[in-house]
Amino acid sequence: MRMYDIINRKKHGYALTDDEIRFFVEGFTKSEIPDYQASALLMAICLKGMDENETAVLTDAMLHSGDAADLSSIPGVKVDKHSTGGVGDKTSLIIGPIVASCGVPVAKMSGRGLGFSGGTVDKLESIPGLRTEIGSERFRAIVRQTGIAIIGQSGNIAPADKKIYALRDVTATIESLPLIASSIMSKKLAAGSDAILLDVKTGSGAFMKTLDDSIALAQAMVSIGSRSSRRVMAVITDMDAPLGNAIGNALEVEEAVDTLQGHGPDDLTSVCVELASYMLLLAGVAKDIKECRKLSQGAIKSGEALNKLHAMVEAQGGDVSALERGLAKAPLMTPFTAATSGYITGMNAEMCGMASLALGAGRARKEDSIDYGAGLILKKKTRDRVEVGETIALMYTSESGRFRDAKESLSSAVSIGDAPPHPVKTVLAAVSEQGVTML
Amino acid sequence: MRMYDIINRKKHGYALTDDEIRFFVEGFTKSEIPDYQASALLMAICLKGMDENETAVLTDAMLHSGDAADLSSIPGVKVDKHSTGGVGDKTSLIIGPIVASCGVPVAKMSGRGLGFSGGTVDKLESIPGLRTEIGSERFRAIVRQTGIAIIGQSGNIAPADKKIYALRDVTATIESLPLIASSIMSKKLAAGSDAILLDVKTGSGAFMKTLDDSIALAQAMVSIGSRSSRRVMAVITDMDAPLGNAIGNALEVEEAVDTLQGHGPDDLTSVCVELASYMLLLAGVAKDIKECRKLSQGAIKSGEALNKLHAMVEAQGGDVSALERGLAKAPLMTPFTAATSGYITGMNAEMCGMASLALGAGRARKEDSIDYGAGLILKKKTRDRVEVGETIALMYTSESGRFRDAKESLSSAVSIGDAPPHPVKTVLAAVSEQGVTML
Repeated sequence: MRMYDIINRKKHGYALTDDEIRFFVEGFTKSEIPDYQASALLMAICLKGMDENETAVLTDAMLHSGDAADLSSIPGVKVDKHSTGGVGDKTSLIIGPIVASCGVPVAKMSGRGLGFSGGTVDKLESIPGLRTEIGSERFRAIVRQTGIAIIGQSGNIAPADKKIYALRDVTATIESLPLIASSIMSKKLAAGSDAILLDVKTGSGAFMKTLDDSIALAQAMVSIGSRSSRRVMAVITDMDAPLGNAIGNALEVEEAVDTLQGHGPDDLTSVCVELASYMLLLAGVAKDIKECRKLSQGAIKSGEALNKLHAMVEAQGGDVSALERGLAKAPLMTPFTAATSGYITGMNAEMCGMASLALGAGRARKEDSIDYGAGLILKKKTRDRVEVGETIALMYTSESGRFRDAKESLSSAVSIGDAPPHPVKTVLAAVSEQGVTML
Repeated sequence: MRMYDIINRKKHGYALTDDEIRFFVEGFTKSEIPDYQASALLMAICLKGMDENETAVLTDAMLHSGDAADLSSIPGVKVDKHSTGGVGDKTSLIIGPIVASCGVPVAKMSGRGLGFSGGTVDKLESIPGLRTEIGSERFRAIVRQTGIAIIGQSGNIAPADKKIYALRDVTATIESLPLIASSIMSKKLAAGSDAILLDVKTGSGAFMKTLDDSIALAQAMVSIGSRSSRRVMAVITDMDAPLGNAIGNALEVEEAVDTLQGHGPDDLTSVCVELASYMLLLAGVAKDIKECRKLSQGAIKSGEALNKLHAMVEAQGGDVSALERGLAKAPLMTPFTAATSGYITGMNAEMCGMASLALGAGRARKEDSIDYGAGLILKKKTRDRVEVGETIALMYTSESGRFRDAKESLSSAVSIGDAPPHPVKTVLAAVSEQGVTML
């Protein structure tokens, strides 16, 4: 078998055989296939696609390129969640505790962020003392004892995906449904949970800009899951505007706590209740989604979900009292104000993310450090009325020189018009093996 | 400017700007752009194409990546010829002398072959003593004195093309009209002639398998030429079956001599007369193609063209008497005979080429040496009647172990049926700036 022929066949639009796909993944992981051949194939895949079988085989080959987590020592149906990522997305910090407080074990591995703001691991590390680098024995023990642990992704999960993703990142081959779906699913399947809920974001701040593309990605991932005998569902949620009001690590942890105390922003609360409820449904805790919603809402109301967050923070070495007192914000604050009066007609999530990055809340490069207390608190959101000079957002940073770029990004993020736009749904659709349900 | 954005724009089907194309060519030639980004872009170009302007700019950027030959010290309109390559294509050895004997200077740089049989340079080197590595001063002096010289391509002609072609060769990105057209034209324009005739082969033994594709390639190259203010025309000639009867270096030189003596095979003679006539037309020697045909035929008839070949061989240090006595064939010969009686319905050029390669007449790898006397003499061609056991071809080699593979290739090359197929034209169309003329 020759890599040349594999590239050539995909270039001409043929479906690759299982052997061809495994030959590529194994050879590239071992560096027997050079980067320049891999990138040519990846570009051909971007432009000619992959069918369901090819995508499933690619996922499987990447999954088996490294270690798979073994969660069998944890009793119960373990449920994982994955978000395709967005701005202000702190849902893992809220949903995990809700689901765990309903008796479903959550053994979650998360990533660090590159871009807008930190990833879940970075957000957690803004809690003093909290550790996310935890060995697999201890990880499983915490889940058995407290019902939940969220740690950083360990070394050898899907190394093929890591290598392929790094190449895609510099060759403009990220955007490709089968490549995105197989990348996500190879890692999630390797993480070892029995069921996986996918939160597929749609809109200006998401990978997938349109509802149709988001549903297609969700379907591809659900299909991969069912071929791997895992229960997988996906929920499509809005990421046109940032989720909730806080963007930035410590700021988002605070908002997560607020939400678990029952006074979070409406959009964030409803997305979290919906995602948690589908996780409970996947775990088989109740017979229908309505029942699951009641359980999720109940876990917030009773304070059980918040207790679960505290238990997890404590088990991972974090300072719960610091969390209760409130995490420190960055020392410098300047409001971003309305340049004109009217209704906010749009708040581009991606540009809000750029503002947060400019304030120091994210990483432009892998080696950058994060200013945990930096970020934005949105005081107004889409459809709100503002008067000229009124505060739309508070910008927090530790370096005054950072305000300028942040302000510029916010200026292009926020549009103000004469009338409020139609309201948009925050949760748009659910996708399962049985099909798509519009919500 | 970032290579990432250039790849991404082409991936989405946009036309690249002039600056983007030059950034890529210059950066890649200097190895500032890595292979893996270049191959991703090349694959995107294969699948999304390039418009006329992009192709012309790419050609120009590659042309200017190295040295351009300066032929201004040679008086007259210098005319070059390029063939897209085929099996049994010894036309340069015949046409050059015809054109030069009509007073048009021919200062030609040719390549070595990789594959089927040698290139023009290899064929010439099968003449004892003949040198093709000649400095540019001496090269121009020979052309001024004898009217013709054919030498190997010098070191620094279009190095960008060399580097890009090497990458395309291992990433399945050869097949692409704009990439093929710009690769050929960058070298031909750098070679410095005032006018260029392109011989675009079509059929099973050619790059371009269909007449439409061949015409499209011809049009793309003519368009590049006219943007560079050179006179460029193309002739589409058949390469479904091998051209002439000889395949192999010394064997083809012999056939070239035969043709210049007026008793070459019909197909070869008519292709050569046609190509030479268009070169004369481009040089402005006569006012129409009919007049030019008369001149070409006259040059053969009078023996002037053969004299010109002798003069060139002598000027380049070759042994003219060896040429007159006849070059040595390889010592071992075995006939390839008909397995059944009937009419030859097809003689796949590519498979005949493989047979010639198997006999030692070509190079499978760059470092292989060539057996100059090896190859094939076809005794029958398409439409000929054969009886079972009758000789179709004579196979020549220096190693008896080579016959087996050659015979196998010939068996799949030759098909025999009940009736002769319709005759095919050897010269199909002429393409100029004014349009396509079917011949």
